[in-house]
Amino acid sequence: MGKKARTAITPTREENFPEWYQQVIKAADMAENSPVRGCMIIKPYGFAVWENMQNIFDPWLKDYGVQNASFPLLIPLSFLEKEAEHIDGFAKECAVVTHHRLEGSENGLVPAGKLEEPYVIRPTSETIIGDAMSRWVQSYRDLPLKLNQWGNVMRWEMRTRMFLRTSEFFWHEGHNAFETPDDAKKDCLTILDMYEKFFHEYLAFTGYKGIKTPEERFPGAKETYAFESIMQDGKALQAATTHDLGQTFSKSCGIKFQTRTGVEEHAYTTSWAFSTRAIGGMIMIHGDDDGMMMPPRIAPQQIVILPVVKNPEEDGEIVAFAEKIVADLKSKGMRAMVDKRDMRTPDKMWDAIKKGIPLRVEIGGRELENKEVTVVRRDIGRESKQTLSVSEFVKQAQGLLDQVHDFMLNRSKTFRDEHTFDGTSLSDISDFFAKDNVGLVKVPVTLLEDDKLEAIMKEYSLSTRCMPFEDGGEKVLIGKAY
Amino acid sequence: MGKKARTAITPTREENFPEWYQQVIKAADMAENSPVRGCMIIKPYGFAVWENMQNIFDPWLKDYGVQNASFPLLIPLSFLEKEAEHIDGFAKECAVVTHHRLEGSENGLVPAGKLEEPYVIRPTSETIIGDAMSRWVQSYRDLPLKLNQWGNVMRWEMRTRMFLRTSEFFWHEGHNAFETPDDAKKDCLTILDMYEKFFHEYLAFTGYKGIKTPEERFPGAKETYAFESIMQDGKALQAATTHDLGQTFSKSCGIKFQTRTGVEEHAYTTSWAFSTRAIGGMIMIHGDDDGMMMPPRIAPQQIVILPVVKNPEEDGEIVAFAEKIVADLKSKGMRAMVDKRDMRTPDKMWDAIKKGIPLRVEIGGRELENKEVTVVRRDIGRESKQTLSVSEFVKQAQGLLDQVHDFMLNRSKTFRDEHTFDGTSLSDISDFFAKDNVGLVKVPVTLLEDDKLEAIMKEYSLSTRCMPFEDGGEKVLIGKAY
Repeated sequence: MGKKARTAITPTREENFPEWYQQVIKAADMAENSPVRGCMIIKPYGFAVWENMQNIFDPWLKDYGVQNASFPLLIPLSFLEKEAEHIDGFAKECAVVTHHRLEGSENGLVPAGKLEEPYVIRPTSETIIGDAMSRWVQSYRDLPLKLNQWGNVMRWEMRTRMFLRTSEFFWHEGHNAFETPDDAKKDCLTILDMYEKFFHEYLAFTGYKGIKTPEERFPGAKETYAFESIMQDGKALQAATTHDLGQTFSKSCGIKFQTRTGVEEHAYTTSWAFSTRAIGGMIMIHGDDDGMMMPPRIAPQQIVILPVVKNPEEDGEIVAFAEKIVADLKSKGMRAMVDKRDMRTPDKMWDAIKKGIPLRVEIGGRELENKEVTVVRRDIGRESKQTLSVSEFVKQAQGLLDQVHDFMLNRSKTFRDEHTFDGTSLSDISDFFAKDNVGLVKVPVTLLEDDKLEAIMKEYSLSTRCMPFEDGGEKVLIGKAY
Repeated sequence: MGKKARTAITPTREENFPEWYQQVIKAADMAENSPVRGCMIIKPYGFAVWENMQNIFDPWLKDYGVQNASFPLLIPLSFLEKEAEHIDGFAKECAVVTHHRLEGSENGLVPAGKLEEPYVIRPTSETIIGDAMSRWVQSYRDLPLKLNQWGNVMRWEMRTRMFLRTSEFFWHEGHNAFETPDDAKKDCLTILDMYEKFFHEYLAFTGYKGIKTPEERFPGAKETYAFESIMQDGKALQAATTHDLGQTFSKSCGIKFQTRTGVEEHAYTTSWAFSTRAIGGMIMIHGDDDGMMMPPRIAPQQIVILPVVKNPEEDGEIVAFAEKIVADLKSKGMRAMVDKRDMRTPDKMWDAIKKGIPLRVEIGGRELENKEVTVVRRDIGRESKQTLSVSEFVKQAQGLLDQVHDFMLNRSKTFRDEHTFDGTSLSDISDFFAKDNVGLVKVPVTLLEDDKLEAIMKEYSLSTRCMPFEDGGEKVLIGKAY
């Protein structure tokens, strides 16, 4: 028998990565499938992650001058029709509202009150926000106009996976308008840097910033920039994108302004987003065969204290001791809790592991007596186990959380580097994927012009992921993707 | 000529209250109608109010043990059919999703991909959350279960009014489950108290807490409790409600648990909400003929500084002086800004008034020289005008904001009391409304049994608003309502 006879999650990542992913979500109690086709229920432990993401990122947007607002959930078909390229991208997966009431019939309730013009539930809001901007923007004095909306959108996906691809999902969608093309480009790059900083510093994962190839651009965009990450199965995940929309939507929506020299011009717009999908990425980058591993700065609970009760009479005393420590940790800004549930200690321990709580603290009779705690880090597990005096622990806890963060971020960086393979020819690509290797292949962009590339991409279900900035746009990443 | 020759808002409240309401929203730049039937766009200044409301109330819910989660936007028709009373309440105003893609045709895009079972966009989520609870609740150990969702819902209203009645609106909807009917009732009353505290302490308005008559109950509820306010036109607005659902939804959704004595029982559930409608109430309670009046604790900006620039050379100096004051105010936790827009000072002044910013500060050459500021309160206007040294102002600003709050809350209390009329007979009701009086009539509940009441209610478009707790349930408020 090896060091670890069993894992908390079955199957393991190696045995069946997609099924492992579903089981991690279930074991961590983050989400579940709903009775509504393709829609998930985000359970409190999963939703708290999304709330934390919003609470961190929203002030960054406000500092950058972005204002939150709210635009209608429904979009008239006539709005979508204005922008041909855009509608091509979304028409195949729209939830369409056609009636406005229900009527009883012998077959139960049926739709009634047919609408003259149907609506779609927004798959994205360029057209409806563009329409508003056409009223709000008159002069260069009204620019830049920076708007953001946190909300739900819907794309009728055929094959869904919790967090990664669901019919309804949550995101923030930013929509900015500028006087010049340079301003719009700069905006896309600035926001992309904010995304990278956010993913690095809070979700503890890395990726490649780069430009999308024309085929992978957002429908209607002049240029799409992306932050692409690599999951533990070697597939890429587009964690966030920014789109330079040029004058596409300002022309179709009529966003015109009087310039500083008094002529009328169409504004230059951008749009940009990350979504609940990033949570899926976080799971696939950090999780292990024992379950979820929460990056400490986004974790709903950073520290859990388990009272190890052998002698029931000590129970109250140990819990009071634990609660005092939690109060101290909270006063220092950490999220901590005592697990007081009526469950066996090993079950609580495994629950904390499966939920990925960064620090697990055990307090038993001996710890109580010695005023000390036993601490285990989730990221490196048993080997990190140490006993500290309470005062020392309270003093070091934030530092330990930062160590967990750094370890996870570095592991993600190492993984990215070790699973990005340089190639120079088409056969480098086909050989790599024929052998079921795990990772992405990076090749010179000149290969994109080779007619034979398409057949290889098709054979192995590949796509171009991005042309990384770090290679000066001279190389392109190719791989399988979520 | 009187003291005030013109008002910033035309028409005045007295001339045309509904139109005054629309014009206040427009002048304050809070919202506008959208091209989508019955749906509004909440503009940044209006949305910031909703964000502040969420940021204040959400932690209160968390302290009470409520966890946020997210449930699907769409609800299968079969779910609605489970609860007859419930569906009767909502079937006439549902947005129905019947198709999942669009196809090009000679008439443009048309719905395609007909769904086997249509969905409605949630008008409320009892059925879909009840379904989840039926999986999550097994034992008394799983109770209480307290869940909340901040989100959008849709009710296809025929006559819409911004904030007050829109097809799509924002709310929070809480859904709790308990072991006993007493726990459920207590929950409804606790949450109602939280609502009252929130409206008093943050939105600066008062109302009546009470029980709804059976006709006015939420469809499916055993009892509905409400916080009812009176607007300046004398109409009532239901600002928030809590519903004791008894076992209605636990029976139709199958929320069963093993009790402490080992038998199986259906849980007792509640639901409760306030919505963006409360913002409409805030406007109609506090606004005057010069526009919006923001309650200071919810105001997007609490203090605005207007640099009064007569001599352009002083401009930079005055702005720097103003910005230093803003930094000081911010460091003390207040929301303050300098209005640096390229506009005439009187226009900025009127803009601040129409937006209802609680404190307006003017700084000109003399103030700069003397290191002082001239402050005007929005609530009482010119008569509050005073000149203070900068240090005195920074010290007193929070106190001034509290004074504005207290003044507004007291005015709302006085208005409520002065516009609630005691009656004892049916003719007291008909006489009051026949004379177009402004307010509500409170009569003994025994009158509800009088057959002739219905005709009077119909003639004057009245409804029972609630049976106030403060009268021990022995009286009922009757009036017109939003």
